[in-house]
Amino acid sequence: MIRFDVQPVSQEWLIQARAHQHQLTKPPGSLGYLEELGVRLAAIQKTLKPRLGRGAVVVCAADHGVVVEGVSAYPSEVTAQMLLNFQVGGAAINQIARASDAQVYLLDVGINSPVPSPERVRSGTGNIARGAAMTLTEAEQALQAGADMARQAIAQGATLLAAGDMGIGNTTAAAALTAALLGLEAEAVTGRGTGVDEARYQRKLEVVRTALERAQARLGELPQADPLALLAELGGLEIAAIAGVFLAGAEAGLPLVSDGFPVTAGALLACRMEPGVRDYLFAGHRSVEPGHTRQLEALGLRPILELDMRLGEGTGAVLSFPVLRAAAAVMAGMATFAQAGVSQRLAQET
Amino acid sequence: MIRFDVQPVSQEWLIQARAHQHQLTKPPGSLGYLEELGVRLAAIQKTLKPRLGRGAVVVCAADHGVVVEGVSAYPSEVTAQMLLNFQVGGAAINQIARASDAQVYLLDVGINSPVPSPERVRSGTGNIARGAAMTLTEAEQALQAGADMARQAIAQGATLLAAGDMGIGNTTAAAALTAALLGLEAEAVTGRGTGVDEARYQRKLEVVRTALERAQARLGELPQADPLALLAELGGLEIAAIAGVFLAGAEAGLPLVSDGFPVTAGALLACRMEPGVRDYLFAGHRSVEPGHTRQLEALGLRPILELDMRLGEGTGAVLSFPVLRAAAAVMAGMATFAQAGVSQRLAQET
Repeated sequence: MIRFDVQPVSQEWLIQARAHQHQLTKPPGSLGYLEELGVRLAAIQKTLKPRLGRGAVVVCAADHGVVVEGVSAYPSEVTAQMLLNFQVGGAAINQIARASDAQVYLLDVGINSPVPSPERVRSGTGNIARGAAMTLTEAEQALQAGADMARQAIAQGATLLAAGDMGIGNTTAAAALTAALLGLEAEAVTGRGTGVDEARYQRKLEVVRTALERAQARLGELPQADPLALLAELGGLEIAAIAGVFLAGAEAGLPLVSDGFPVTAGALLACRMEPGVRDYLFAGHRSVEPGHTRQLEALGLRPILELDMRLGEGTGAVLSFPVLRAAAAVMAGMATFAQAGVSQRLAQET
Repeated sequence: MIRFDVQPVSQEWLIQARAHQHQLTKPPGSLGYLEELGVRLAAIQKTLKPRLGRGAVVVCAADHGVVVEGVSAYPSEVTAQMLLNFQVGGAAINQIARASDAQVYLLDVGINSPVPSPERVRSGTGNIARGAAMTLTEAEQALQAGADMARQAIAQGATLLAAGDMGIGNTTAAAALTAALLGLEAEAVTGRGTGVDEARYQRKLEVVRTALERAQARLGELPQADPLALLAELGGLEIAAIAGVFLAGAEAGLPLVSDGFPVTAGALLACRMEPGVRDYLFAGHRSVEPGHTRQLEALGLRPILELDMRLGEGTGAVLSFPVLRAAAAVMAGMATFAQAGVSQRLAQET
């Protein structure tokens, strides 16, 4: 069984950073949520002068056996085609990463493709409507592959770490896994993904329900089940890898940024395995996928951006990097009232 | 009378850019509002490959005679103290500008300070509860100073332009001016600014009402009045300069970014003077100041960020620069489905 040594973020540093934030030359609270982001970054880095340099996003890709059920608007081949697009720099994540000073790391843990990949655990999962997505060993291998890639990114200088996803059919797996982890009905977490029509949506709902019933028959009450068992039963290889990215990132003490629905399923799983991961986690954005809001509520995370995005690839996570950098810069660089000789307020109402 | 030659943004370019956006390798609409931002940037720059480099923020500062009425939580001296803080790089805007690759330009058009400033039109406005803020000539001079500083920033390489504000008491002037321009009651646009208590808030409301009555007695129905006359009667010297920044920026064809309540009052004024300014305008963020939402509704602008900020200085505007750069990068750099050999969706529902 894989273990990660995740230290909780220090409450003392949080308190100290919050006190410092109130000494900076601005009306208390006037930078809103940016202040809280800065405080958390300071506590994570154990300094009143946090600094974020280069970022990284590990885009985890895999295929899903459940696509045969007709749950996606795109064919499975698109996963491999998009991975090629990532490799040549033609995708959205490539442009956003360049604009946000982030390095893109690609990890094929399970694409259906004749071209071999060193980290591929298997070619696509099983169809979760009919059986387990993968074995426990495969789930661990995929998780380990994500952790290894995260460690590589950190070794190469990443100071801020996101995960991204690519996998046709993966919102179906993410819906099943999220429902299982949070004890929710299929309706609460199943959305239209890349944009399915009503008939496909109904089919997708039915598939998620079937998968949940199947898993429950095998594992008992799902929210109480072992998270790795749930992952193997209902998840995806890229979701396993994403969990690994967050677990290794938290172990290394880096600020971590979640993206949309499949990535946040991986984040939920990582937090279930090691609750300390939550202390390092920021929500880059809120996806329009309805289940994403349920995930964010469960994690108690407020999204940085709300731009109605639903692409995945890590785009929403990486787009939030500059806001996190600015939050750190405000904490690190602003003068205090005393330093700047700026008068305090007339009355201290707060 | 100052005139600006503002060309409307081409509808043909908007249509062409929107069509191109739909050819890029992502499900149509999956980048949400980022897509619309990219389309507008492409049309403003008249290219399918928009590019945003260095940004600039012109922080316009002035004092307000109305502060004697007790409408602010901070004394007037803070305006000059904060300008010094901007000069030495200790303020929030300095840190956020550095993080967002933007140059800060400071413009003292009306601070109460014994230290002279070449662009200062007068030392603070008159008390708008008792009389006009300034003369028409002074309003034009302040507006011109803002336009000149914007042109300087553009000459020095700015490709993206924001305005910022500093002026203790300026949310009172912005409230009066916004109510006048939009035909709203004082209650709809008066908020707590830097954080006044209930007694000061009631006083502030009363002052805004008094100022509006006074202006109406002099100018007739306020929404129909000449915008420059409204500015002189109710505005602030920095609000005049901010309008000048946006007018000169639109004349030069640059994407413009509004900040919070006082800056958006300047943007409203600029749009009233030259409606074409609206085509170049982006809303950097939504401030918690309630009147700001009314301004954004009137301008038909959706804010890029919603982080509960209410500091001013241009912080919310400049914080949104990286999102705008990413929106341009997506338009400019992504492969089309045809280029990348990626399969289109199974069914075209959209």
